[in-house]
Amino acid sequence: MDMSGARDARATRRARTARERLVVIGGDAAGMSAASQARRLRGPEELEIVAFERGHFSSFSACGIPYWVSGDVDERDRLIARTPEEHRARDIDLRMRTEVTEIDVAAGRVRAREVDSGSEYWTSYDKLVIATGARPIRPDMPGVDAPGVHGVQTLDDGEALLDSLARARGGVDGFAVAPVGGFDGAPPRHDRGHGGRAVVVGAGYIGVEMAEALIKRGYEVTVVNRGTEPMSTLDPDMGRLVHEAMAGLGITMVGEAEVTKVLTGEDGRVRAVATQDAEYPADVVVLGIGVRPETGLARAAGLPLGAHGGLLTDLAMRVRGHENIWAGGDCVEVLDLVSGQERHIPLGTHANKHGQVIGTNVGGGYATFPGVVGTAVSKVCDLEIARTGLRERDARRVGLRFETVTIESTSRAGYYPGASPMTVKMLAERRTGRLLGVQIVGREGAAKRVDIAAVALTAGMTAEQMTALDLGYAPPFSPVWDPVLVAARKAAAKVRDGAP
Amino acid sequence: MDMSGARDARATRRARTARERLVVIGGDAAGMSAASQARRLRGPEELEIVAFERGHFSSFSACGIPYWVSGDVDERDRLIARTPEEHRARDIDLRMRTEVTEIDVAAGRVRAREVDSGSEYWTSYDKLVIATGARPIRPDMPGVDAPGVHGVQTLDDGEALLDSLARARGGVDGFAVAPVGGFDGAPPRHDRGHGGRAVVVGAGYIGVEMAEALIKRGYEVTVVNRGTEPMSTLDPDMGRLVHEAMAGLGITMVGEAEVTKVLTGEDGRVRAVATQDAEYPADVVVLGIGVRPETGLARAAGLPLGAHGGLLTDLAMRVRGHENIWAGGDCVEVLDLVSGQERHIPLGTHANKHGQVIGTNVGGGYATFPGVVGTAVSKVCDLEIARTGLRERDARRVGLRFETVTIESTSRAGYYPGASPMTVKMLAERRTGRLLGVQIVGREGAAKRVDIAAVALTAGMTAEQMTALDLGYAPPFSPVWDPVLVAARKAAAKVRDGAP
Repeated sequence: MDMSGARDARATRRARTARERLVVIGGDAAGMSAASQARRLRGPEELEIVAFERGHFSSFSACGIPYWVSGDVDERDRLIARTPEEHRARDIDLRMRTEVTEIDVAAGRVRAREVDSGSEYWTSYDKLVIATGARPIRPDMPGVDAPGVHGVQTLDDGEALLDSLARARGGVDGFAVAPVGGFDGAPPRHDRGHGGRAVVVGAGYIGVEMAEALIKRGYEVTVVNRGTEPMSTLDPDMGRLVHEAMAGLGITMVGEAEVTKVLTGEDGRVRAVATQDAEYPADVVVLGIGVRPETGLARAAGLPLGAHGGLLTDLAMRVRGHENIWAGGDCVEVLDLVSGQERHIPLGTHANKHGQVIGTNVGGGYATFPGVVGTAVSKVCDLEIARTGLRERDARRVGLRFETVTIESTSRAGYYPGASPMTVKMLAERRTGRLLGVQIVGREGAAKRVDIAAVALTAGMTAEQMTALDLGYAPPFSPVWDPVLVAARKAAAKVRDGAP
Repeated sequence: MDMSGARDARATRRARTARERLVVIGGDAAGMSAASQARRLRGPEELEIVAFERGHFSSFSACGIPYWVSGDVDERDRLIARTPEEHRARDIDLRMRTEVTEIDVAAGRVRAREVDSGSEYWTSYDKLVIATGARPIRPDMPGVDAPGVHGVQTLDDGEALLDSLARARGGVDGFAVAPVGGFDGAPPRHDRGHGGRAVVVGAGYIGVEMAEALIKRGYEVTVVNRGTEPMSTLDPDMGRLVHEAMAGLGITMVGEAEVTKVLTGEDGRVRAVATQDAEYPADVVVLGIGVRPETGLARAAGLPLGAHGGLLTDLAMRVRGHENIWAGGDCVEVLDLVSGQERHIPLGTHANKHGQVIGTNVGGGYATFPGVVGTAVSKVCDLEIARTGLRERDARRVGLRFETVTIESTSRAGYYPGASPMTVKMLAERRTGRLLGVQIVGREGAAKRVDIAAVALTAGMTAEQMTALDLGYAPPFSPVWDPVLVAARKAAAKVRDGAP
């Protein structure tokens, strides 16, 4: 049996009489939210807070990187919610460029290494927050480390990519951004004289967002994807709609293809990407394959990891079995309230909530993170993509039988200018009619409509109950039957018809 | 004791062996939705459907009239969801320009009068649907019937207003629409050489929508309002934001003023509007004071009316105590699920749901309309306005104690282009923390966010539960904490702090 819990508890008792020491590993959303919230509740005379960040930046929006690369966000620092100096001004001892290399749970201490000097030291904690985030999946293939091949996980990654884009353009005209403003879904003008060629590997959220960014930069974009359709977080029939829309935007979509090799030129830089079947010329390659929980440290320390490699916590975000260790953000698994199973969903909004809950608990309050329903929204140019709850395959995996419906509607009253088509797919459980999931693909007003379903899922509503929802109606905002209600009506009818 | 229920039941038994006859009074949203849904479930060999409409149009969108007047919707017929011919093609005997003047509940018959010929006849029903709608409140004051003074309840009203606008412009340049396209909240250019002057009486939904329409038509617009702030469906502190935004759009806002008189010129047409204190020159006047249930017929027939003058129904939309009479749309009162009291909320989306429920029940199926939470959205130019649940005064009226919070946030991540400010006010019950209401004023993306609260209200969620909602997040769509979550966090904290 693991005795570390008991030791943790002893440490707590000791600390009650003195100033406690909180150590936070990771200086981004979850870690620094936790630190800030703990500081709000307990002043420096009660709680010392030391945070370690191995990178150059604290509290930045990784989700914002595609929009910085696209030029929509004009400078890097706008993505930084709070600088190290700002954290320090609030009595948080944030040590940048300092990596934690070991957690000694038994002794209640961590070993830190200053990245630049290489010097190491141990430091003790009474309470520990692990917020080590996730790392991008980098396929093991020839050429993957060549200049011009980029991940987009950190601000450093973003900066390197922007340098690469500048170089690919010859470094002369900088970013003669092609279709700026009024980008309304019309295929971009490809100015082959100046535009470079980009290959995006992977067609998930990062992939489609980076495709948009590169199109806005005037690049000719090819997206190479392992699955048949992009956005595997959607069912393939909905992913097909994304596929068609992206192709309509002038993006070359290559499905069912595995990148096997990155080919380099005489200068050592990337020149093309090869799959089993073909080669795609590329001045720049972006890896958008996804991320895995960064839990090497936690694993080495014997902390409990789940099937997806993320830390397992209780509802208060405590690492299971460890009274004085919390974890949150991209390095943990979260409970899916619809399927009842753990998932790994790296997303800034969850990381911030985790941080808030952890900081409250560390600070002597009480808060829980009950779980997620798997809501995610994205866009590529003017196409909006949203999902929440279970896909067909998720539902089947956990043994649920269900009905699915797909409906077409519009974002506004049909007669109102700017009404755009919207496709809503809904899954409801057989017999009970309980809502299981919703996917939406459309234009303006499509993405955030998924929030209706997200709340309904959280509340355990049935499709039938949803048909009576009192949603906002006025011609500029919705048809008289909101598209989500149309889907609910059809799903409820199908559940009734398929009653046995 | 009312015996009509028993007689109704006898009529049903009789009809079971033969073809039944459904009579519908009112050919708009509720009535024709009911007729159409009943027809879907039962063919003409089982169910005869006769519908009476006293106006010229069936199944039209009254909510769309402001946008037709503004020129956003280019022609009247786009507001017609289904023409009389289309209804007749589906075996619904829709008799236009025919008014029902009496309901004889005891005998199961109605008296109809052809508006143009004046000829009258009785016709019997086995089942009756009352969908007589609402009529605009027309203040009893001198000059209110003068040419140039308009309601905007029917397509006929809209047409008359458009004629009046054309005439006010001299009928020469027609509608040289002023700020078309790219209308982004900048004050309109007033071209006094061509632009006329319009006074809108009332600053509720119709009032603010008509103010927008008239501004788009190049008019100089004055809104005269009885209350201190516009949009009395909001609390005054939120109405104040609407006031300021409308003033910023160049609309003259006159509050705490009662229109006492419409002044006419030598040609008999309106020339100004007078309040106790002042006169406001006007080429055209729009009445947007609100509507009352059109229930004179029902009252005369002895059917049960509520405190607001609307018909009272059960959950299946049956008129209380009458097995074979249903009612829906703007002529009924609906149950407010938050306060537990009846309200009159004339709104197309409710009317359509009522029609669907009634048609299902009439057609031999089973459906209910559980009630509303009072969601409404509107816009004036680029300002979006939304509310759901109870205002402070509503909560007090039903004896609830509550906490209120108001927060400022943005529609998108702060660094993302187009992020616009948004104010969210939230009411939560003391002790329980149960959500009671939300009001939102902002720009793009503000209005439909209220749906999150509408679903949460329906589900009986607390502010604390809402803080964990898994809402869609990506920088183009939301800050990492959605504005509704920010409000929920603050409300939950206030409920905790004010615990006793």
